[in-house]
Amino acid sequence: MNFSSKLLENAVNEVSQLPGIGKRTALRLVLHLLKQPKERTTYLTEALQNLKEKVKLCKNCHNISDVDLCEICANKNRNDELICVVEDIRDVMAIESTAQFRGMYHVLGGKISPIEGIGPQNLTIDSLIAKVRGGTIKEIIFALSPTMEGDTTNFYIYKQLEDIDISVSTIARGIAVGNELEYADEITLGRSILNRIPFEGSLKQ
Amino acid sequence: MNFSSKLLENAVNEVSQLPGIGKRTALRLVLHLLKQPKERTTYLTEALQNLKEKVKLCKNCHNISDVDLCEICANKNRNDELICVVEDIRDVMAIESTAQFRGMYHVLGGKISPIEGIGPQNLTIDSLIAKVRGGTIKEIIFALSPTMEGDTTNFYIYKQLEDIDISVSTIARGIAVGNELEYADEITLGRSILNRIPFEGSLKQ
Repeated sequence: MNFSSKLLENAVNEVSQLPGIGKRTALRLVLHLLKQPKERTTYLTEALQNLKEKVKLCKNCHNISDVDLCEICANKNRNDELICVVEDIRDVMAIESTAQFRGMYHVLGGKISPIEGIGPQNLTIDSLIAKVRGGTIKEIIFALSPTMEGDTTNFYIYKQLEDIDISVSTIARGIAVGNELEYADEITLGRSILNRIPFEGSLKQ
Repeated sequence: MNFSSKLLENAVNEVSQLPGIGKRTALRLVLHLLKQPKERTTYLTEALQNLKEKVKLCKNCHNISDVDLCEICANKNRNDELICVVEDIRDVMAIESTAQFRGMYHVLGGKISPIEGIGPQNLTIDSLIAKVRGGTIKEIIFALSPTMEGDTTNFYIYKQLEDIDISVSTIARGIAVGNELEYADEITLGRSILNRIPFEGSLKQ
């Protein structure tokens, strides 16, 4: 690209470092900002800087929070005997928006993935184990994506918890509501037959 | 979306105001920034702020520039008798990258578009007319997109220049190099037959 301005080139280079944003898209975004009133840029950059400087991770569940203990962990009405283990704060948001879960969360910060160089020590697994050994927790629900990495992570944590007397479950896997059976992949469909549920159970919600 | 942090919500809202970026993409970008070292965010926000505060429009051609007169206008080796009228600085970059044009540019800043509320007074048309009346220019090339708005803008400017003795041309329209004829639209194909060029001319470059 032939830039007529170093400032422009610099801004485009920085924006194009974001995932999924190429140089052309970056240029489009930057030129859009230039056409907007100056405050737009100020609001954007201040919001990003503020987030980066002031945001905290909840000391209990590692969810993103403005304070030391996130809203969910601080909520006395939630069931602190039940912990849902998720990969990412986006998963917390997704589960919260279902309004079906009233327990607590534990955000791992990723999945074990040797290819990406992520081992157990890069995740918050130790803090989870310590929390479980601490006492009150009765059940752990694994809510990681059903991929090779997700399953590996589930199994690793499960092994660490073997000597502790708690129940461990994983979110149900099967055909998504609204999906056509003929388009389901073979593994999902095969397992959904093996792990069939009593019809009465399926009527809940 | 259920945000666990106001700071996060604020950042996502600001990022999702960019064109073509929805809330989910904004969240993905913001969380990516959070995972990166702090400097990444600082570099990004500083680049955007610097651009917005310091960037100038070239006083001659209205191209984006770091100084009062852009590199192209300041270049003595370029032909200042030839002006290429474009909509946007991206078009300058596109034409410059062909290395086929050694004249000057004039950036209109848009096209006349009543639907979007853009009239001639919102563009740099007056400055173009004044420049042409100023003297040295011998030819104007319209290089706007061949759309209804582009054609309207070309015609409006052409009308303003009627009493001045300069030649006015427009970039060639026809079948793009490498395209299959059978997929060309009817208007382009029809016009490309009417406006056929001598075969010897087509051998250039």
